[in-house]
Amino acid sequence: MYNIKKYICGSPFETNAVAENIAVSDKLPCYINISENDRVITYAMGKEDKVYGLGEAVRGINKRGWIYETYCSDDPMHTETKRSLYGAHPFIIVDGEKLFGLFVDYPDKVTFDIGYSDIDTLTVTVKSADCCLYIIEGEALTDIVKGFRRLIGKSYVAPYWAFGFQQSRWSYYTSKDVQSVIDGYRTNGMPIDAVYLDIDYMDGFRDFTVSDERFPNFKEFVRSAKSQHIHLVPIIDAGVKCDDSYSVYTEGRDNGYFCKDKDGNDFIAAVWPGKVCFPDFLNAEAARWFGMKYKTLTDMGIDGFWNDMNEPAIFYSERQLDKAIGKIAAYRGKNLGVYDYFGLKDTVLGLSNSAGDYSSMYHNVNGEIVCHDRVHNLYGFNMTKAAADAFVEIAPDRNILLFSRASYIGMHRYSGIWTGDNQSWWSHIKLNLQMLPSLNMCGFLYTGADLSGFGDNATEELALRWLALGIFNPLMRNHSALGTKDQEYFRYKNKDIFGNLLKVRYALIPFLYSEYRRAIEDDDLMFRPLAFVYRGDKLAEACEDQLIVGDSVMIAPVYEPNALGRYVYLPENMMMVRFKSDREYECESMAKGHHFVEIPTCEAVIFIREGKALPIVKAAANTDEIDLNTISFITNNDGGEYVLITEADKRTIKYRSTGEVYV
Amino acid sequence: MYNIKKYICGSPFETNAVAENIAVSDKLPCYINISENDRVITYAMGKEDKVYGLGEAVRGINKRGWIYETYCSDDPMHTETKRSLYGAHPFIIVDGEKLFGLFVDYPDKVTFDIGYSDIDTLTVTVKSADCCLYIIEGEALTDIVKGFRRLIGKSYVAPYWAFGFQQSRWSYYTSKDVQSVIDGYRTNGMPIDAVYLDIDYMDGFRDFTVSDERFPNFKEFVRSAKSQHIHLVPIIDAGVKCDDSYSVYTEGRDNGYFCKDKDGNDFIAAVWPGKVCFPDFLNAEAARWFGMKYKTLTDMGIDGFWNDMNEPAIFYSERQLDKAIGKIAAYRGKNLGVYDYFGLKDTVLGLSNSAGDYSSMYHNVNGEIVCHDRVHNLYGFNMTKAAADAFVEIAPDRNILLFSRASYIGMHRYSGIWTGDNQSWWSHIKLNLQMLPSLNMCGFLYTGADLSGFGDNATEELALRWLALGIFNPLMRNHSALGTKDQEYFRYKNKDIFGNLLKVRYALIPFLYSEYRRAIEDDDLMFRPLAFVYRGDKLAEACEDQLIVGDSVMIAPVYEPNALGRYVYLPENMMMVRFKSDREYECESMAKGHHFVEIPTCEAVIFIREGKALPIVKAAANTDEIDLNTISFITNNDGGEYVLITEADKRTIKYRSTGEVYV
Repeated sequence: MYNIKKYICGSPFETNAVAENIAVSDKLPCYINISENDRVITYAMGKEDKVYGLGEAVRGINKRGWIYETYCSDDPMHTETKRSLYGAHPFIIVDGEKLFGLFVDYPDKVTFDIGYSDIDTLTVTVKSADCCLYIIEGEALTDIVKGFRRLIGKSYVAPYWAFGFQQSRWSYYTSKDVQSVIDGYRTNGMPIDAVYLDIDYMDGFRDFTVSDERFPNFKEFVRSAKSQHIHLVPIIDAGVKCDDSYSVYTEGRDNGYFCKDKDGNDFIAAVWPGKVCFPDFLNAEAARWFGMKYKTLTDMGIDGFWNDMNEPAIFYSERQLDKAIGKIAAYRGKNLGVYDYFGLKDTVLGLSNSAGDYSSMYHNVNGEIVCHDRVHNLYGFNMTKAAADAFVEIAPDRNILLFSRASYIGMHRYSGIWTGDNQSWWSHIKLNLQMLPSLNMCGFLYTGADLSGFGDNATEELALRWLALGIFNPLMRNHSALGTKDQEYFRYKNKDIFGNLLKVRYALIPFLYSEYRRAIEDDDLMFRPLAFVYRGDKLAEACEDQLIVGDSVMIAPVYEPNALGRYVYLPENMMMVRFKSDREYECESMAKGHHFVEIPTCEAVIFIREGKALPIVKAAANTDEIDLNTISFITNNDGGEYVLITEADKRTIKYRSTGEVYV
Repeated sequence: MYNIKKYICGSPFETNAVAENIAVSDKLPCYINISENDRVITYAMGKEDKVYGLGEAVRGINKRGWIYETYCSDDPMHTETKRSLYGAHPFIIVDGEKLFGLFVDYPDKVTFDIGYSDIDTLTVTVKSADCCLYIIEGEALTDIVKGFRRLIGKSYVAPYWAFGFQQSRWSYYTSKDVQSVIDGYRTNGMPIDAVYLDIDYMDGFRDFTVSDERFPNFKEFVRSAKSQHIHLVPIIDAGVKCDDSYSVYTEGRDNGYFCKDKDGNDFIAAVWPGKVCFPDFLNAEAARWFGMKYKTLTDMGIDGFWNDMNEPAIFYSERQLDKAIGKIAAYRGKNLGVYDYFGLKDTVLGLSNSAGDYSSMYHNVNGEIVCHDRVHNLYGFNMTKAAADAFVEIAPDRNILLFSRASYIGMHRYSGIWTGDNQSWWSHIKLNLQMLPSLNMCGFLYTGADLSGFGDNATEELALRWLALGIFNPLMRNHSALGTKDQEYFRYKNKDIFGNLLKVRYALIPFLYSEYRRAIEDDDLMFRPLAFVYRGDKLAEACEDQLIVGDSVMIAPVYEPNALGRYVYLPENMMMVRFKSDREYECESMAKGHHFVEIPTCEAVIFIREGKALPIVKAAANTDEIDLNTISFITNNDGGEYVLITEADKRTIKYRSTGEVYV
């Protein structure tokens, strides 16, 4: 159904993105032009060609019409003209006169100019001609995805509880704060499975420590939360605080486990704790050492982690800051012109995540000294792999939740990702939807955006509308930044509506988890653009705000303020289901074609495809208490079978047209 | 049809926003609550209440669901959560269980919390209780608008040529650059009427000077451009360069015409030229002096100006910069923690447009010393009024084009506004559309957004889609920032399409100008939300992306990338017209209801209401050459009459159902 060609340019760095051995071809397909010493790939796009992929990136499902750079970037302002976000996923599918996938396996920046400079030309540029190119050809879009996904290996399997609703904030400062969040949900009858610990749970931002003062007797607190069916998920940052009294630092320093500067001294930069060193995750020994540190927390009962700041984010380095401060001090008393003033501003803004710092940082890869520049996109990947590898040893009997901010293709085998520091913007509801299939193409199935938005302030209406989409995010987390309005769902005036929508999530968890596991098993998408399902239907192919979930359901969330509802395109006859709560819903048959659907904020609306059915259960307060015996089906067929995949097994469930289950 | 109540709190500063004398009431309507010493106005909104107005602001036509501050702000990142833009327009219309307009005539910041803090409450807060409140009641939305507009006086009448297409860039550096832009349009048969001169035309950013080197023999150049039917439109900035050899500065200084600091010395800040003083436009004598300076340019044949940086924008003041640099220098060699680092960043970013600077600046208002803080929103207004007042003297026989970046209600009597430094974002196409009616409500009829976007890079597809809306902007200007991709329309691959769409504009100019003038005459909107026309039709009331232009036409532009077309709601039967060029179009009758309309990038699609008709002319290379004898009508009726208002007269034109005109 597909074939893959591998083409090697120069001497590529081994990224471990690919899990399967492929014979090397000496020729690219004739429609792909490669020039400038293998650095520039061009393809003449047809007027109607569409381009999919790129995983975590701004803009639509069809990526045409912009220029993107795959380069792990700590930048929270995801406006539509940004070129890079936190993840680097250099895989695209070109769908038009030719149909093919292109994976540029290269750990430094890759530029994808998709009709930006010239409206009809795709140009892919690597910085140096040391990369592996993979061309995947097939008959259908799904073939390309399957071929690519088989190439890069099976995706990470998250635990079942990680499909429960999760609440986060930067920060819940004390165990009391955390407990009051748990209580807020529980006393209002709103289901929840996890609460997050952002950077302030630590002792002075030191990884693998817990503030004794604010989280006394942490092990007992973790146990107590677990007894309430709540998982606590602490953050781990990439940088290790320089502090002679902190063993993680001294061990790393004494063993030479940190990244170096050009003179072989530890490379020092500043992040949350002030000065830090960066563990050299590309050094196998250092990676193993850091990975084993998670044991401190798993031993206390922790069974979920999020790895952050691992692009790596750098606020500044000493060297750059000194230079900057010197430069600024020299402005004293001067009559600054416009360009000096801009220079001053740029000097300060340019301190963070600077190319100069990245090119001053070195890794030790099996004895070879490698400049960070060359391998930038592998840093977060290898931090996360280090943790995942360690979990096999330190928690062999537990499936640990793990996801990361920075990522590269290949990391999908070890963890999920969240889509980083988004904003409480309506446009980011749509972006959340649009990224899901793109991320799936690149292997990231356990993923989601921060619901209600991380930065800026969320209004109640935005929170409700985002939640109606959030119900479908595998990683369903509400998270917000320091200084923003509280956005826990129980704090709102209409908390009953939030509670009801959360119950819809819990009714759908067995289905969502099952479809998630099936997508892993089949190397397939869990979220499909309509273009992947209704090929040849040009309206479906152009649809940018609806998705097929699994095989049976279409979603079409509202992402505009003050909306009465929205337009929905049905590429076939479907049955609309208006969920008001887990067991309160109305069904309506609808004909293929265009519809304006009124959707009040208290409803989550979905569409069941013809001949399909949706399994639901009775909502519970948490995933532990979901009772699969309450399963029934909302059917748009005459009954049938559904293969339900759980964490433990796979079972075939038979149902009648009424939705009732029988043996 | 309407009644207005005026209510005075404390001792308001006379803003001159209002042009009509109204008796003072001692009581507000009972549904409006006023508390905290007249500082806080609250209103309990019904679930379905809509709120219109606020002129230049982010988000939708219905402003509900956000918090806004009317405060002239130099901020080019118009993301959806910004509270203030360049203009300050504290007028809203509440449409629901009650229908009323509220104008808070107050020249400092007014906060409109429209269901942001509490989803059901409107809260309006002024900083000190010294304001005039006007409540306008009426039967219909249009009554409220007419009542308010009559209160604030007739809007500025722009010259006919200012409805031609205008090209700008920061900057065309030389007269040769300008000529090549003119040639680019002319040789490609693309109509154009004006080219802009951004800050670099000046001699070292000195107002009312022209660089001899880059624009030698400027008067002759202006004449030559005029002979090509091109108007040159120079920028004038608020700040006057401190330079002892520059007469504008020395005159201003010697006569005490500049704003002062608290000790009575000239307040010095830095903007484009480095150090500047700000003319005290609230001082009548200073205003007149500055206004008369425009004569330097009008004498050279200039007949259009844009006033910029008049919030006033301040890059930094000496005092604040010294403090900031001192603070930063003190960081030298320190191990900065997170909050120090943020402090450093904020110190630099906080230099511009700081509250501290605004509160250190003083005006002389008829002998009274007034802190800038109290009158901030009147600065740009009075700069622009100074120019308009002077034009009456210095160019009595010419109608000078004038528009401004900063504004307050009242300024609409003297000039237009553009909506400031937007971005090449798809979302800003929609924002352009949504601001038009809001601005109209506040009196600003000659207005428009920078087509293709000012900041960031425009793609060809974005430029085309924006142009299809831009055709309807009264101020139709393509403008872009330093460092961005060239975006003159003749530079694109498909320049023929751009040319054709420009011709559609020129075919519509007599209609657009006529509707513009009619809106002025009738104190009415030129651009109406559907809610204003189809009251009671809840789909129309919720429509955020279609407008009625004048009385006869509905527009519904595409504002998404890679779109096949868009959904359009027809609140009545209409006739769709697909314009491919000025005289190449197709008509199709369409029934009331929802439609998905395919719209290729080469088309501008409009809808003619039932019983109405649209006058068009043959496009010309410029407005001078538009021949009204080529007028005909696209009719959706059996023929009728149209009152065409031109710059010179008003004439009734009779047309048959065929569109043919007869006497």
